[in-house]
Amino acid sequence: MRFDVTILGCAGATPTIDRLPTCQVVNVNERNYMIDCGEGAQISILKNGIKKSRIDVIFISHLHGDHFFGLIGLLSSMHLESRKEHLTLVCPQYLKHIIEVQTIATNFVFCFELIYVFTNSERAELIYENKDIEVTSFPLLHRIPTTGFVIREQSKLRKIDVEKAVEYEIPIYFYNQLKAGENYTNKTGLVVDNQLVTVAGSEARSYAYCSDTKYDESYINSVANVTLLYHEATFTQTHAARAVETLHSTALQAATVAAKATAKQLLIGHYSAKYKTLDEHLAEAKSVFENTILSYDGLVISL
Amino acid sequence: MRFDVTILGCAGATPTIDRLPTCQVVNVNERNYMIDCGEGAQISILKNGIKKSRIDVIFISHLHGDHFFGLIGLLSSMHLESRKEHLTLVCPQYLKHIIEVQTIATNFVFCFELIYVFTNSERAELIYENKDIEVTSFPLLHRIPTTGFVIREQSKLRKIDVEKAVEYEIPIYFYNQLKAGENYTNKTGLVVDNQLVTVAGSEARSYAYCSDTKYDESYINSVANVTLLYHEATFTQTHAARAVETLHSTALQAATVAAKATAKQLLIGHYSAKYKTLDEHLAEAKSVFENTILSYDGLVISL
Repeated sequence: MRFDVTILGCAGATPTIDRLPTCQVVNVNERNYMIDCGEGAQISILKNGIKKSRIDVIFISHLHGDHFFGLIGLLSSMHLESRKEHLTLVCPQYLKHIIEVQTIATNFVFCFELIYVFTNSERAELIYENKDIEVTSFPLLHRIPTTGFVIREQSKLRKIDVEKAVEYEIPIYFYNQLKAGENYTNKTGLVVDNQLVTVAGSEARSYAYCSDTKYDESYINSVANVTLLYHEATFTQTHAARAVETLHSTALQAATVAAKATAKQLLIGHYSAKYKTLDEHLAEAKSVFENTILSYDGLVISL
Repeated sequence: MRFDVTILGCAGATPTIDRLPTCQVVNVNERNYMIDCGEGAQISILKNGIKKSRIDVIFISHLHGDHFFGLIGLLSSMHLESRKEHLTLVCPQYLKHIIEVQTIATNFVFCFELIYVFTNSERAELIYENKDIEVTSFPLLHRIPTTGFVIREQSKLRKIDVEKAVEYEIPIYFYNQLKAGENYTNKTGLVVDNQLVTVAGSEARSYAYCSDTKYDESYINSVANVTLLYHEATFTQTHAARAVETLHSTALQAATVAAKATAKQLLIGHYSAKYKTLDEHLAEAKSVFENTILSYDGLVISL
């Protein structure tokens, strides 16, 4: 099953020529989930061949403009293109007001249904689920209420050990139930324990998103053992004081979170516009967590 | 004195890979005046080498998203870059509310002063003036209140006929006053009429902006005799019915306005995303008004 992340914008608060404000699209099983929606999102999805119509859910971490100023334009274009399907917005409650104030100006009502799911920046919670994924939100520590997200694929089905299944005389019509973990009861009432005839499926993959936040150990548990951790790295240690002042992280701190959470891989981004190159970010992160990569606009990474 | 227009976005309601939503920057005497501010404006000014700090005034024609969704991002970046100078917004009144609702979310107050000048979509008026330009706004006919703008350089100074000035014994220290149109009175009380010693300066240049509007003769007088007329041409005559339905214009109608207004040159834009090429737009307009050019993102045109 496809599970990949496309980085559409990895800039910090102000964009640069090469970097748009924060926006990512996670594709799981050919359904697109957008995380944050900085200005220009509707244009960069065009450039990256991502179809608006395939975006079912948009997650907004917080209401700093570099994370949501592209949303109203994207929604308006979906309306102009006569979208039929509903769209789910997982976001801070006040965003509903911001959207409504702008549609009043424009004098229209969206032709598709907008479903709002409001985030809670006080505690971790399972916030969205469908047949492919479950998503938890969890508090980050920034200047305004902010949540991170973990997108986890639904638990994989168990694999049948066919030799054993034949040995225990389990009929083929029951194989799908075996994969789902059920025990088999034969005509004589004998119960065959599922674990006797199946083995565990491969591990469920997961993607964690942490932006924006100061370094803090309180959210490490929420991102423990993920396949890929995206963590903001606005600054390097050279500007550690500025990170403290603005409630952002350094590359070293992002890597420390990855190490403590025993993530498999770390992806950093949300770089301040002040940096001409990112060599220092990468070196700093790798000194703590070797399996680190730099995000850039257009990067596609498979889990 | 420099007087040019840079097209930063010439798309219609939805952007394409090559065309951003509407945004233009008029440079008169090294001061930048932005007209409309579609999504992506702050990024395209970077790409076109236009400095945010030199933008003193932003004119917003109406509150359809493709004409103002880039504004909040641009203002936020000006704030993050610690802008000192005030900024004047000439716009519909409701835009103030939209901006305020978003800054409340972001929990900040702009570090520079925002001066609002509200447009009146009921009648033409002189709406802004400084030493270089005077700007009039005038009603267009669209689905929501909309105004066009004419930016006109201040009347040119008169030119001194030096031979005559010497003949009338006018002292050199008075020459600037002559250029400004004053009469000279000599020691004996004799008045030398200004027109005896000066000739008219060259004609003041002007740029008119009409987007979005249905074709209507009511605003032709407002754009009469301009040096360059920008007029929306969302459709070609093939889709004339759609133009009527959406209160937009065809290329033919834009050219008709240019001809009736005896503009010197016509620039068309705001093309619907449905057109793959613009040959038909150009041919159609030229059939009525020969001196027509197509706008494209990045075009710079001198007046």
